[in-house]
Amino acid sequence: MNKQNLKYGKSPSKIRALFEYGKKRKQEVGDDNVYDFSIGNPSVPTPEIVNNTLISLLSSDDVNKTHSYTSSWGDLKAREAIAVYLSKTYSAKVSKDHIYITCGAAAGLTISLNALLEEGEEVILFAPYFPEYKVFIEHAKGKTIEVKPNPKTFEIDFNDFENKVNGKTKVVIINSPCNPTGVVYKEETIIKLSEILSKKEKEYGHPIYIISDEPYRELIYDDIKYPFITNYYKHSIVCYSFSKSLSLPGERIGYIALNEENEEANDLFYAICGAGRSLGFICAPSLFQNLIPHIMGVTSDISVYKKNRDLLYNGLKNIGYDAVYPDGAFYLFVKALEEDDERFSEVAKEYNLLLVPSKSFGYPGYVRVSYCVEEKVIKNSMKAFKELFERYQ
Amino acid sequence: MNKQNLKYGKSPSKIRALFEYGKKRKQEVGDDNVYDFSIGNPSVPTPEIVNNTLISLLSSDDVNKTHSYTSSWGDLKAREAIAVYLSKTYSAKVSKDHIYITCGAAAGLTISLNALLEEGEEVILFAPYFPEYKVFIEHAKGKTIEVKPNPKTFEIDFNDFENKVNGKTKVVIINSPCNPTGVVYKEETIIKLSEILSKKEKEYGHPIYIISDEPYRELIYDDIKYPFITNYYKHSIVCYSFSKSLSLPGERIGYIALNEENEEANDLFYAICGAGRSLGFICAPSLFQNLIPHIMGVTSDISVYKKNRDLLYNGLKNIGYDAVYPDGAFYLFVKALEEDDERFSEVAKEYNLLLVPSKSFGYPGYVRVSYCVEEKVIKNSMKAFKELFERYQ
Repeated sequence: MNKQNLKYGKSPSKIRALFEYGKKRKQEVGDDNVYDFSIGNPSVPTPEIVNNTLISLLSSDDVNKTHSYTSSWGDLKAREAIAVYLSKTYSAKVSKDHIYITCGAAAGLTISLNALLEEGEEVILFAPYFPEYKVFIEHAKGKTIEVKPNPKTFEIDFNDFENKVNGKTKVVIINSPCNPTGVVYKEETIIKLSEILSKKEKEYGHPIYIISDEPYRELIYDDIKYPFITNYYKHSIVCYSFSKSLSLPGERIGYIALNEENEEANDLFYAICGAGRSLGFICAPSLFQNLIPHIMGVTSDISVYKKNRDLLYNGLKNIGYDAVYPDGAFYLFVKALEEDDERFSEVAKEYNLLLVPSKSFGYPGYVRVSYCVEEKVIKNSMKAFKELFERYQ
Repeated sequence: MNKQNLKYGKSPSKIRALFEYGKKRKQEVGDDNVYDFSIGNPSVPTPEIVNNTLISLLSSDDVNKTHSYTSSWGDLKAREAIAVYLSKTYSAKVSKDHIYITCGAAAGLTISLNALLEEGEEVILFAPYFPEYKVFIEHAKGKTIEVKPNPKTFEIDFNDFENKVNGKTKVVIINSPCNPTGVVYKEETIIKLSEILSKKEKEYGHPIYIISDEPYRELIYDDIKYPFITNYYKHSIVCYSFSKSLSLPGERIGYIALNEENEEANDLFYAICGAGRSLGFICAPSLFQNLIPHIMGVTSDISVYKKNRDLLYNGLKNIGYDAVYPDGAFYLFVKALEEDDERFSEVAKEYNLLLVPSKSFGYPGYVRVSYCVEEKVIKNSMKAFKELFERYQ
């Protein structure tokens, strides 16, 4: 048996483990009595146009074509729709010929990493980061290098970053809006990052890729222009998922887009096709590929998350908690009330509060609170948060 | 860039390459003038109950739940339905707790191989075999060992098999009904295979797994009882897909089932969960998982393929071709009219006949003819097959 995968299976992601615990706990004490802030399962309904389009595809005379294999890199019409949308919305230099449709963003990441990495090459992550990145990197035989954040803003500590880029660095993963902090990189951050990497590319004589993991791209609540990475950096790869923006997390549909200015885009696309093939992705679910041309630019009602954010952030601040103000995504990063975040998460469970400890995000001492929940969960949880806070006074 | 994946991308599967060629060629000369026997894209309509159930799930008040993340190993109700069906139909000893729902059979295979193999361990394939197995094995760092068939029956050459099992053998992949020959293993074949492997397990002191790749399980046309592997061999893993039986190839839905009599089933299931995680499979498409409890045991109209088989087999025999009589699946394995099957496939293209050369199946000198096509394609192709035959006389 494979030892590494046995280990991954026996020590599942803290998020998933807490999610499974929550499902059991709800059976014991009732749905309303568990404040499940564990997972990023969007709470806002899927837009009606999405379900209606799916129904219409399934009712069509062409339904058998809809269920057929597509090209392994994806259906032409879907790729065209994505390219047109990205060009119009972000003036992005992308092409249908270098868009690869995936079973969600996780598949986009594993495929990109397996396309890029040779054994032992390094991948930089900015802490705190989505813990599964490390699993994906390890499987692709890469080595994870962590860069600290500025502890006040939770933006990149560029000094630490510059020190950690070296001749073995092949990939830098960014994730804006960020899971778990909700931080959104401003344009100046992306410019600075790109400048440093361009310099380092020259110094080391090979491309260093930015993989931009963007499932939360549309989930921005404040007045921030989203700096689309291909406009700033040549060797960039966008991994997108419709999971969060359309409330379709279980359906596994997303895409990889390359930068047309990348001189090795052709080869990279081949390597992506090869990686998808060797990982066992035949094509992304075809019904959902057929949906894409009909829903580009549509999102579920994001204002609900903004309302949740304000409710949760202000509620916890009023009680006395310390938290990072999130501009996007649907996560609040809250300082734990004791040093050991895992113990704090266990104590919170006694109050039926399911909060993900931050250690596995590469930055201990916090918990992640997913506020993609019904408003009443946040409202009803305030008493429990207050009792938890008082226990530590 | 990763050299191996670049290679896989640049030399795509012969099947896929021919499928892509066919799409282009149809644009040039019209759909009706290309006899595309390249890919296993089911031609029989998806059963109405499948589309109706999907529509009803999408019309339900619970639709948001339908689109949600499931457990990474799959939705409970779907796993229960699969376990009940397999127990009833095959008296199989399986349990919902050791069923893992996958994005199709390819994912089932990559996940199983990555769960089982350590670097350098050997996997036995029975030639001719589905070429992607080799890609999946290589990615999982295993080594492919080929076993010859009996050249008349295309069943296993057991002498060759016994000689090739050794201390490094970890997995044996079987595929019945077989792609590309249509051969269905009889019960005595499975019994003999199990006896040999049980003996070898004792000799070498560790489990040797049979992975049974069964996307064509229901596609059997003659009076053959299907010997379900878990009833014969303890260390067995079933990889199934609904692609072929329900004509849903693009939707990516299937499962892995373990044998409850396997003493290490718990650990193996953990390793499977870990492998799924590290490959980037978050969960199988949730809409299609929700479909499963409603359609277990349903198949599309298989009699159409039987009719196609008879039409194609008899038609080619009458012209003078030599072919393996297929009891199942929807492939006919036809002897090429010259030694070099790849050249023969190229010559066939001149007649707009798209036939997959057999070299990549580990057994040169043949072509695979997929008869999951409209009846008229077979009928209309006969003239071209005749002309091709005459060219070689």
